[in-house]
Amino acid sequence: MRPQELIAKKRDGRVLSDGEIDLFIGGVCDGSWADYQVTALLMAMFIRGLNHREQNALTRAMLHSGTLMDLSGIDAPKGDKHSTGGVGDKTSLLIAPLAAACGVAVPMISGRGLGHTGGTLDKLESIKGYNVNLSSGEFKRVIKKCGFALGGQTKQFAPADKKLYGLRDATATVPYIPLIVASIMSKKLAEGLDALVLDVKTGSGAFIQKEAESIKLAKALCATGRSFSVNTRALITDMSEPLGKFVGNAVEVYECIKILRGEADDAMMPTLELSAELTASLLVQCKIARTIESGKRKVENAVKSGDALERFRQNIELQGGDQRVCDRPELLLKKGLVETAVRTAESGYVASIDTFAVGRAVSDIGGGRIKAEDGVDHAVGYACLKKIGDQVKKGEALGVIYCRRQSQADAISENLRNAYKISKEIPRTTKLIRATV
Amino acid sequence: MRPQELIAKKRDGRVLSDGEIDLFIGGVCDGSWADYQVTALLMAMFIRGLNHREQNALTRAMLHSGTLMDLSGIDAPKGDKHSTGGVGDKTSLLIAPLAAACGVAVPMISGRGLGHTGGTLDKLESIKGYNVNLSSGEFKRVIKKCGFALGGQTKQFAPADKKLYGLRDATATVPYIPLIVASIMSKKLAEGLDALVLDVKTGSGAFIQKEAESIKLAKALCATGRSFSVNTRALITDMSEPLGKFVGNAVEVYECIKILRGEADDAMMPTLELSAELTASLLVQCKIARTIESGKRKVENAVKSGDALERFRQNIELQGGDQRVCDRPELLLKKGLVETAVRTAESGYVASIDTFAVGRAVSDIGGGRIKAEDGVDHAVGYACLKKIGDQVKKGEALGVIYCRRQSQADAISENLRNAYKISKEIPRTTKLIRATV
Repeated sequence: MRPQELIAKKRDGRVLSDGEIDLFIGGVCDGSWADYQVTALLMAMFIRGLNHREQNALTRAMLHSGTLMDLSGIDAPKGDKHSTGGVGDKTSLLIAPLAAACGVAVPMISGRGLGHTGGTLDKLESIKGYNVNLSSGEFKRVIKKCGFALGGQTKQFAPADKKLYGLRDATATVPYIPLIVASIMSKKLAEGLDALVLDVKTGSGAFIQKEAESIKLAKALCATGRSFSVNTRALITDMSEPLGKFVGNAVEVYECIKILRGEADDAMMPTLELSAELTASLLVQCKIARTIESGKRKVENAVKSGDALERFRQNIELQGGDQRVCDRPELLLKKGLVETAVRTAESGYVASIDTFAVGRAVSDIGGGRIKAEDGVDHAVGYACLKKIGDQVKKGEALGVIYCRRQSQADAISENLRNAYKISKEIPRTTKLIRATV
Repeated sequence: MRPQELIAKKRDGRVLSDGEIDLFIGGVCDGSWADYQVTALLMAMFIRGLNHREQNALTRAMLHSGTLMDLSGIDAPKGDKHSTGGVGDKTSLLIAPLAAACGVAVPMISGRGLGHTGGTLDKLESIKGYNVNLSSGEFKRVIKKCGFALGGQTKQFAPADKKLYGLRDATATVPYIPLIVASIMSKKLAEGLDALVLDVKTGSGAFIQKEAESIKLAKALCATGRSFSVNTRALITDMSEPLGKFVGNAVEVYECIKILRGEADDAMMPTLELSAELTASLLVQCKIARTIESGKRKVENAVKSGDALERFRQNIELQGGDQRVCDRPELLLKKGLVETAVRTAESGYVASIDTFAVGRAVSDIGGGRIKAEDGVDHAVGYACLKKIGDQVKKGEALGVIYCRRQSQADAISENLRNAYKISKEIPRTTKLIRATV
């Protein structure tokens, strides 16, 4: 079957067979399909739609475009968390050591930041020497020793996704649920998991901002995960404001270590709260805890006992990083940065935050990537001092920009100030966990 | 505006502005749009649709991706014919000298054969030495001397079309009327015409086989032509059987010269009939004739007087070809070819002919191209001896294959025999001219 015939079939709204979807992904990988044929089919899929069966076939074909991670010889249940991405969303750095401390083996393949969101790999690289480029063998070795490993996507796992994602990004075919599901799940299924917990963000800083759409995505992700016999659960969580205190790279790692050390301040508490919820879910899914409540108690103990911090320290050492940050997290905070407060021009209550704008502002000063090929300045960032519902007085600081030059701060302060809507009335605050699927 | 944003707009079914369509075609030409972005938008256009205004804007943008032909200093009205393509469709070779003999200047840019259809340029190259690669200056010089010139598409005229057509062919986005209209009309409008007559084929050998669809295409072509102030008219003509006697290259030129010499046999008469109709329409459109009937009389005179043949002879000489074929058309027929009759296995009447299969069979023995990069064997071909409505006796020849080796004939005779449906009842015959738009 020629690519044209397969494209014409979806163009006309017909359903593709499993074999046809295999042909497509095969062609993507071996180059027998030209990129311009791939994008024509992706657009036809986007507009005409893929049914549940096609979504699963696409996921399976993309998964089998590479190999599965070999975690043989590791007795613990394998579990992971995936987030659809947000601003200040640093929970991976906590969930991995917390879950590991509670007995889950966590083979966490993560990504880099793009646009308004940060990426776990960029954050980890704030730790001097930390190596995210792990081979499959290194992944296994690190997990065996400390219970988790954090690395980047390699050609070995779901290589079709990398190719497809780049093309989708360039052709306005990203925001379609079956394609999102196949992209996320093909990578996560390659980790050979027993359980997967999904953090589907909703609100002004999320890719999908409407809660109903987020729930739809969560349901689709769970259905596909379960059809591959992975115990999959999703939490719909709030991204109408940045998560926790810091947005950036080194500053987010700092926040996580402070939490693991039991030194979290109030602004950091939501980060711990969400991490604990997601980890507890994973513990229940892995049958390590019987209820979410008992799971959360295990998480609490892992922090209090210092076990999670110890796992993180081991992991940093195993992945080549400077583990001294576990004892002295302030080593992560670069000295001599320009600190500029963003001050409110009126008194009242923080009614809403344009979280996308906050993430974008941090990217603009170098903390993230505008284009995939950009570098990242690990030192810069933003501290969110005021959140939705907080009372503020005219002239009070809403947050603090940390950057290299005053001109950088000047370029974004106005955008940041405008990201906050101040109201005279006490606004309705939202729950961090919106729903569970 | 980034390509992604423009693609997303059409993806969501919104109407593109003239400026946005200009941006798209500009990006196609200067390479700032990647091919995979172009095809994503083409697919979105195909599925979501283009309205009449978008169709015209696309035609205009593609037309202005190149320059217009400079025919300054030629006083005669400029006219041309375009056919949507068929089997044995050799009317261009007659209409050009006939119209020229009647006072029309004909700057005819033609194409090559692909798939089941032949191409005017391939046919002309059957004449030894004939050069179809004319510069703009040569076009003008040849028209000035003999009234018409026949050449290939160059980068100068509507270059965006060449690029887009190749991508559409590879991505199943060819058969959509607004894209077809923009492709055809951008090239024809580049000829700087006063009048254009369109031969929109319908039936088993046409690209669009249903008459209602052919009429829809004809109307769309005429609307766009007229909106560019070109007197445009379309004839919907029969392609349920090959046109005239021969299908091939040299054999089709032979048929045309026999007609111009007044030596046409009965099997060739439909070729003359259709050419006369189309030329007569052009003469009326150019105000050289007042009615189709008087136009046809002028055409008849151009043949009888030998004027059209004389124009053809001059043209061949001006374009570097061996004009002796005008006196001895049999020079075109290669000696020593294998001649194989295709015989019917039953008696009755020819009820239908799968004309696509006939065209494809001739391509298969080298008379046409399966892929665009294939070469063409000018000598091979097929003579259609029986047409729809003809009575046949078991064992009688339906046609004759001319090829190089017996194995070639063996490979296609069965397909050719099966292309004819023989019925016991006298079938309804169809008219050559089905409708006028």
